[in-house]
Amino acid sequence: MASREEKIQLLKDNIGAIQDFPIKGILFRDIFTIFLEPKILQACIDIMIDTVKECSKDIGGIVGLDARGFLFGPSIALALKVPFIPVRKAGKLPGETIKESYDLEYGSNTVEIQKNSIKPGQRLLIVDDLLATGGTLKAACNLIEKVGGITDSCLVLIELTALKGRENVPSKVVSLIKYDD
Amino acid sequence: MASREEKIQLLKDNIGAIQDFPIKGILFRDIFTIFLEPKILQACIDIMIDTVKECSKDIGGIVGLDARGFLFGPSIALALKVPFIPVRKAGKLPGETIKESYDLEYGSNTVEIQKNSIKPGQRLLIVDDLLATGGTLKAACNLIEKVGGITDSCLVLIELTALKGRENVPSKVVSLIKYDD
Repeated sequence: MASREEKIQLLKDNIGAIQDFPIKGILFRDIFTIFLEPKILQACIDIMIDTVKECSKDIGGIVGLDARGFLFGPSIALALKVPFIPVRKAGKLPGETIKESYDLEYGSNTVEIQKNSIKPGQRLLIVDDLLATGGTLKAACNLIEKVGGITDSCLVLIELTALKGRENVPSKVVSLIKYDD
Repeated sequence: MASREEKIQLLKDNIGAIQDFPIKGILFRDIFTIFLEPKILQACIDIMIDTVKECSKDIGGIVGLDARGFLFGPSIALALKVPFIPVRKAGKLPGETIKESYDLEYGSNTVEIQKNSIKPGQRLLIVDDLLATGGTLKAACNLIEKVGGITDSCLVLIELTALKGRENVPSKVVSLIKYDD
């Protein structure tokens, strides 16, 4: 049985790195390479579930961010036997919703949550694949607060530490793999 | 232990229906209501896995469509111990990719796959939440063929039968829930 550190190293060794995507000068971390190896994907999901159980108490729901948070969120929610709630790009969720916009380097993004998807006081963990500047996670925290929930913490597979994104997120952030370039 | 028919009825009873979304005249089926109830989500994933095991042979990978296919695909892939491969909206996948465009009522969409994500002759099952006109599933089948894979079948949670989308899909289609309105 591999240790937690060995499993995380296995993940790190299997995340793709592609130069100059989506634009020149960016080293893109490709998480989909780990999805091609069932044992590595299972290790990833197992570590995420273990991490949530160890680092967070009384989690009452998992919030997954569109689209790559959807890859992990339902599996974590099922393991904890709690609801899974999506935060989506604007215009995709029906019913009564609340929106939150945030700035990008060029332009802005808007994300949205369904009002009735969270109960007042419900304690939530947000999951996404990657923490860069933290704009999306911050917006998701704000949405959760607006609908009456409480963000316990954010869990990401990868943190790009040089961008200091966790300073922008109004919640505890747990990352499994850190890159400083 | 509920029968398969009872579980499917449970799913059908718990899928949301919202009038006039995204535009007037459309009755929108909201799958996220089932994600709010862990037991119902578990039943959904279990039925999907059972269906794949019963209806498809020698599946060598699960292809999930961005974004809602990502909610189901990894769980099915893990249960079958096979790779999970994404088909994404254009511009999101790094490395060498192949694109396929298809027409919408107004405008068009383009989806993309990574060339090295599929091996020649690999037998694949495509998963998505909903079959409407079948444009995205058809495009995904075409992408798989172009990179040398074989589409065994497509699995969707919901089929809107009045739109006759399955006639457009060049593969077997299995749907769990059918609506004729």
